Amino acid sequence: MKILNGGLENVRGFSFSARECGIKYENKLDLALIHSSTPCNASGLFTKNRIFAAPVKLCRERIGNRIHSILMNSNNANASTGQIGYQNALVITDELARQLDIASESVLMASTGVIGVQLPVNKIISEIPHLVKGLSAENARLVPIAIMTTDTRPKEFAVSFSSSMGDFNIGGIAKGSGMIAPDMATLLSFLITDAPLERKDLDTIFRKCINDTLNSITIDGDMSTNDTAIILSPISDNYLNDSKDLRLFEDSLMAVLTKLSSMLIDDGEGATKSIKVVVSGAKTDEDAKKAAKTISESLLVKTAIFGKDPNWGRIACAAGYSGAEIEEENLSISFENIKILERGTPLQFDKETLDKIMSRREYTINIDLGMGRGKSTFMTTDISYDYIKINSEYTT
Amino acid sequence: MKILNGGLENVRGFSFSARECGIKYENKLDLALIHSSTPCNASGLFTKNRIFAAPVKLCRERIGNRIHSILMNSNNANASTGQIGYQNALVITDELARQLDIASESVLMASTGVIGVQLPVNKIISEIPHLVKGLSAENARLVPIAIMTTDTRPKEFAVSFSSSMGDFNIGGIAKGSGMIAPDMATLLSFLITDAPLERKDLDTIFRKCINDTLNSITIDGDMSTNDTAIILSPISDNYLNDSKDLRLFEDSLMAVLTKLSSMLIDDGEGATKSIKVVVSGAKTDEDAKKAAKTISESLLVKTAIFGKDPNWGRIACAAGYSGAEIEEENLSISFENIKILERGTPLQFDKETLDKIMSRREYTINIDLGMGRGKSTFMTTDISYDYIKINSEYTT
Repeated sequence: MKILNGGLENVRGFSFSARECGIKYENKLDLALIHSSTPCNASGLFTKNRIFAAPVKLCRERIGNRIHSILMNSNNANASTGQIGYQNALVITDELARQLDIASESVLMASTGVIGVQLPVNKIISEIPHLVKGLSAENARLVPIAIMTTDTRPKEFAVSFSSSMGDFNIGGIAKGSGMIAPDMATLLSFLITDAPLERKDLDTIFRKCINDTLNSITIDGDMSTNDTAIILSPISDNYLNDSKDLRLFEDSLMAVLTKLSSMLIDDGEGATKSIKVVVSGAKTDEDAKKAAKTISESLLVKTAIFGKDPNWGRIACAAGYSGAEIEEENLSISFENIKILERGTPLQFDKETLDKIMSRREYTINIDLGMGRGKSTFMTTDISYDYIKINSEYTT
Repeated sequence: MKILNGGLENVRGFSFSARECGIKYENKLDLALIHSSTPCNASGLFTKNRIFAAPVKLCRERIGNRIHSILMNSNNANASTGQIGYQNALVITDELARQLDIASESVLMASTGVIGVQLPVNKIISEIPHLVKGLSAENARLVPIAIMTTDTRPKEFAVSFSSSMGDFNIGGIAKGSGMIAPDMATLLSFLITDAPLERKDLDTIFRKCINDTLNSITIDGDMSTNDTAIILSPISDNYLNDSKDLRLFEDSLMAVLTKLSSMLIDDGEGATKSIKVVVSGAKTDEDAKKAAKTISESLLVKTAIFGKDPNWGRIACAAGYSGAEIEEENLSISFENIKILERGTPLQFDKETLDKIMSRREYTINIDLGMGRGKSTFMTTDISYDYIKINSEYTT
């Protein structure tokens, strides 16, 4: 596997475009298109929120089709917009399909931004000719910019791998900096590859990789109405299906999604820390995930991390109410390699060394439940003054 | 029912005491005692956290006994302190019992403060003679002060009611300002009454009242290791057992606990708002509680409230992932009497009037799920810069 410069442009057979459409702000790229002239197999994972956006409904209906294009917009979520919102998504994707000369059913759509406001359909429709005309490989770098909302920087990553059928590439982009929570951990993420995979292989591998990456990060514990992750792989007469090749594909996709996940955490709203929460020794992997998630989402843990306060009691407390099987006398906690709780007994530790660790931007907290062999890793951020600032001023 | 001035001192048969013991800080009341020379029936509700403090273990063992006293300390939770922590609680309550000439098993204990630090046993033991000597009705006002940690003011309330057996009083105190979450919503709350109730009546009524009050408020969604609520009622040959009298007792206890709950919310760490979240039209009461709890705990909702931002999309979104049965097209939301979403359709509203409502310290958000007749009310706060400040500087 090789890490490539740039992002989506590394993947053969796709073209890209982005426009300033004025959906909410002027002079901001807010509409983008990923297109493949070859039809693709697609796999998608979407929010589990019962209130979900119109484009999520549209994607769920179409994800099993032969897919050519994904249309994206930022600054408007098209969520809580009722039947009109869904009709708007249909009208827009119909018009795009007409101009690309493809079936409407082969176009997916994803939106992110404010909830409860109708899309400015006419503005978008009038930009579609320019969007189609602008399709090129070079414009790939504009797409991760066009989907940004409170993100401070675009997120893209790409790798290549060598299989028995030759070299292939996987590129991915993501946006999201608040409302990132497990069960679709990001607002939007799009992956494309020139490796041809059968739909069922693509689906199995994509779900597995998302579970360990985008579904294992948290910023504020809220679950969005719009969470969407989609991967496209070209339909072919000659699929990658050797088990070793599929393993290489999986490793490469995992690498892309892992990198995108850490970029999301690094750019968490107001975050000053990127923390890895590693739970081991749980009765089951599921228990480990419960504990890792609850610790990662605890406001008291997150404020302690922000304040560089080694308040391990808050970590023990969060593990205690996570629902995981836990016994106080089996619990051990360390910050990096500094043990501070050993099987229920607080240890003396060097405060200066610990302070140095907690002053880093990135470090790992290890929690050993001492109950079995289950394990899980989560990525989380601290909660800072800036998180409050960003989120108390979002729509006004 | 009549609201009384002051708190615990209104209840006949109890005496009180508090001392500066230097558990963590000098010149702070941090040790307190509630005592009844008549043995009492007790009912208690405790944290559901699997990591629970030594005094919680002690209370669980003793709550069914004839109870004379509750010893309380602040500034040290005696949690995650292992077998030594439990032994310390035993030694301290043994010594108190000896000096009061009562059985050890008749003494309860509750602690609040930092987790993972052993109690300064000798300091506490040496204060016990002064604590016992100081017992008086007048010292009641010191007890809610002695249990404060980050609370900015003591919380006490008392009422009287007239039954067929004469007039009785109920007094209560509470502390807690962060880590207040459903399933024992406060760190510590103590209620006493001179109304004699059989243990099973006391227990049934106490559980019911707590469920609608202390278990229906949230500040940061964290669940403490020390949450404790206890009520004492004198053992008697002549119990209050007429159903009308018991109903009067329940209403009075509910009034005390409701008032204490709103005092806790008003004093939430860094809180600038006290918000009532009223969910109606749920399929079941349980569904309503799920939605009310999730909306009340959502960081995005809480930051919007802080910023006076009528971002109802975040409320819909939180309701959507609460686990309650919900359909977008049935959902209605209003701030006080201003409807902003009507069965899935956003309404035009007067921004100025809404801004006036959201500028108040207290207001109500109504969410009608339109699915049935279930309802639930939660109390919540906003999350402000000061919450972050208080909690990032707690132990250091």
